[in-house]
Amino acid sequence: MGFSFDIVKKDETSLARLGRISTPHGEIQTPVFMPVGTQGTVKALTPEEVSDHIRADVILCNTYHLYLRPGHEVIQRLGGLHRFMHWQKPILTDSGGFQIYSLSALRKITDDGVAFQSHLDGSTHFLTPALAIEIQQALGADIMMCLDECIPYPSSFQETAQATERTTLWAARCREKTTGTEQALFGIVQGGMHTELREKSAGDLQHIGFDGYALGGLSVGESTQMMHAMVDHTVPLLPEHTPRYLMGVGAPADLVECAGRGIDMFDCVLPTRNARNGMLFTRRGKVVIKNACYREDARPVDDQCQCYTCRNYSRAYLRHLYMAKEILSYRLNTVHNLFYYSTLMEDIRTAIREGVYEDFRRCFYQEQEAEEEA
Amino acid sequence: MGFSFDIVKKDETSLARLGRISTPHGEIQTPVFMPVGTQGTVKALTPEEVSDHIRADVILCNTYHLYLRPGHEVIQRLGGLHRFMHWQKPILTDSGGFQIYSLSALRKITDDGVAFQSHLDGSTHFLTPALAIEIQQALGADIMMCLDECIPYPSSFQETAQATERTTLWAARCREKTTGTEQALFGIVQGGMHTELREKSAGDLQHIGFDGYALGGLSVGESTQMMHAMVDHTVPLLPEHTPRYLMGVGAPADLVECAGRGIDMFDCVLPTRNARNGMLFTRRGKVVIKNACYREDARPVDDQCQCYTCRNYSRAYLRHLYMAKEILSYRLNTVHNLFYYSTLMEDIRTAIREGVYEDFRRCFYQEQEAEEEA
Repeated sequence: MGFSFDIVKKDETSLARLGRISTPHGEIQTPVFMPVGTQGTVKALTPEEVSDHIRADVILCNTYHLYLRPGHEVIQRLGGLHRFMHWQKPILTDSGGFQIYSLSALRKITDDGVAFQSHLDGSTHFLTPALAIEIQQALGADIMMCLDECIPYPSSFQETAQATERTTLWAARCREKTTGTEQALFGIVQGGMHTELREKSAGDLQHIGFDGYALGGLSVGESTQMMHAMVDHTVPLLPEHTPRYLMGVGAPADLVECAGRGIDMFDCVLPTRNARNGMLFTRRGKVVIKNACYREDARPVDDQCQCYTCRNYSRAYLRHLYMAKEILSYRLNTVHNLFYYSTLMEDIRTAIREGVYEDFRRCFYQEQEAEEEA
Repeated sequence: MGFSFDIVKKDETSLARLGRISTPHGEIQTPVFMPVGTQGTVKALTPEEVSDHIRADVILCNTYHLYLRPGHEVIQRLGGLHRFMHWQKPILTDSGGFQIYSLSALRKITDDGVAFQSHLDGSTHFLTPALAIEIQQALGADIMMCLDECIPYPSSFQETAQATERTTLWAARCREKTTGTEQALFGIVQGGMHTELREKSAGDLQHIGFDGYALGGLSVGESTQMMHAMVDHTVPLLPEHTPRYLMGVGAPADLVECAGRGIDMFDCVLPTRNARNGMLFTRRGKVVIKNACYREDARPVDDQCQCYTCRNYSRAYLRHLYMAKEILSYRLNTVHNLFYYSTLMEDIRTAIREGVYEDFRRCFYQEQEAEEEA
C-alpha cells in the first residue's frame, strides 16, 4: 500500500480541513502534529509511550543526525529505521538541509550540493539531492523531504531568489531518484518573505509534481504576523488534494492559527525541548515548574489533563525532580507536553468535524487568557 | 498492620533462608535486593516500571538527600514519601549517615551528633540520632535505619572502637524516639574489620533490641575475601528471627555469596549507576555497550532475558542511544540491569525453596565464566 491523502471534511468557518493520510505503516489523521525523534528516539520516551499514550500517528526523524550517527547504511542493514528504533507507525524524515545550516560548519553550496563538516567530529561530507534521497530510502521513511537550501532571515530578494531557484533544481533531482509511491516525496516551497518568489517556487514544484508540499523557511525569526501572512499567501498556491506541511511550527497558538489557514501537518521541537527545560503547556498557559510557588503545590500541572503525569504527580514533585535534575523529570514533563499537543490536535480535528472552527479558535484564546488573570 | 518477619524455608546446603517481611505497605520476599531511589525516584524509571516490570518489593530512599531537598517537612505536608513519589510498596530509608561522610563537607562529630555542610548549597546542619528518626518518621518509611558513625577503611582499632561505641549510643537514642511497629527500626552493626568490635556491637544492639539488624561498614574498599569473612563472623552473632541486611552490597556474585551466608536484604547503586554508564549485567558476564563490536549487532543484550529492553531492542540500537547520550539509553539500560538483579534474586529464592543452593551457586559461576571463553 502506498501513499494517499483524502480530505474528509472542510470547515465552513475557516480554511481548515480534516484529512487522512495513508502510508505503508498506517494512517495519519490530519491536521497532525509530529513529535520530533531527532536521533531515532523521541527524547526521553519509549515508542509505546509515543504511540499508545501520546497517541501520535507519525513522528519526524532527522536525516542529518542519522546519516552521521550511526549511519544510514548501518540502519539499513539492521532492517531499516522502524525496526531499529522499534516504532511501527509512519515516519517522516527531513532532508538534512536545515541541520546542515544550523549545526554544522558550512563549507560551500553549489548547484551540485552542499559540502559541510560534521558537528560531531569535524569530518567532511558532501550532501547532494540524490544522496539525501538515498539516505531517506535506506532509512525506509514513509514520507521523504527534498533537499532544500535554507537561508537566514532576513535575506535580500536576490539571495532568496537564488536559493529558491536552487531548491527547485534540487527538487527535480530528488524526484528523479524516486520510484513508486511506497515512499512519498514532498517538495518544499521556499521564497523567504517574498510573495513573488513563493509563487514561483510553488508553481515550479507543482510542475515537477510531488505527493505533498511543505512550506519551508518560516518560523525563522520573522514576526508571527509575517508568518501568518506568508501562510495565507502560499496555501492558495498549493493543490487542494495533497497535504500541506508547515515545517518547524510551532507554538500552540500557531497550530490553531495555521490549521485554520489550511495547513495539514506540523512538527516542532518546542513541546519536547521546553519539557526538558521545565516549561509545561496547559490550556491556561504555561507553567514554569521550577518556580518557588510550586514547592508545596499538591495539585497536578493541569487538573483536567488526563496524561500519566497529571494523573499521578503533584507540581511539588515535578518541581523537586526538576531541581534535582532527575531523569524522571524529563520523562514526566515530555509526556505532559506531548499529550497536551496531541489533545490540542484532537480538539482541532473535532472542531473541523463539527464545522465550528472559528468558535473553537475564539475559545482557545479565552482559555489561554484566563490564566493571565488568575 | 505493623512489621514482622517470618522464615519460610532454610536451605540445607548453606546458611541461606527464604523469608517474608510484612510492612504496612505490603510484603517483601527475602532474600531481597532493594533498588536505590536516592532522591525519591529510582533514577530513570517510573514507580510502575519498578513495581510491575522490575517486580521490586521495596526500594531504598536516602534521608540525607530528601532532608536537604525538598525537605522532610515539605514531603510530610504533601502526605508522606509514598504519596509524594507515587510508590505504593514498602520504602526503607537510610539514616543519612553514610551520605554525610561521603558527600558533604564534614564539620564535626560529637556524641550529640554530626555537624555538616550541605553538598548543594554549603548550608550548615546538625544531624542528631533523634533528628534522623524524626526525618524518617516524617517521610513515612516502612523501615528506618539508626544513625551510625561511618569510618574510612582502613581504620585503627582505636578509631573503630570509638565510632562503634558512638554508633551504639546513637542506636539507643534512635530506639527511644520510636513507638509501635508501624515503622520498623533496624540497628546497624559496625566494628570495621575487627571481629572483637563486631561482636561487641552486635551484642550491645541486641541488648537495645531492634526489628532487624544491618551489617554496616562493609564494601568500603576491603577485599571480597575480607568482606565475606566479616559476614561469616557477624551473621551468627545476630538473632535468627529478625532480618539481616548487608548495606551497600553489591555485585551479582556478592548477592549469591552473601545470601548463602544468611543475609536477607541488600541494596546497591551498582545496577542503576552502571546502567547509566553503559555497563550491562548478563548471566554470562558484563556487556560494555559502547564497544565498537556492537555497532551492527542485531542481537538483544541477552537473548534469554525477558526484560522490555531485551525483548524490543538490539545491541546496535542501545549502542547508538548511548553514543548519542539519549535519555532513552539510561532508561533501557536501567530496566535491563534491575531486571537482571530481580531475576537473580528470584533464582536465589527458588534455589533456597528447592534446597539446592550450593548447586545454584556453582551454576552461577559456570555461566558467568562461559562468557569469558566465548
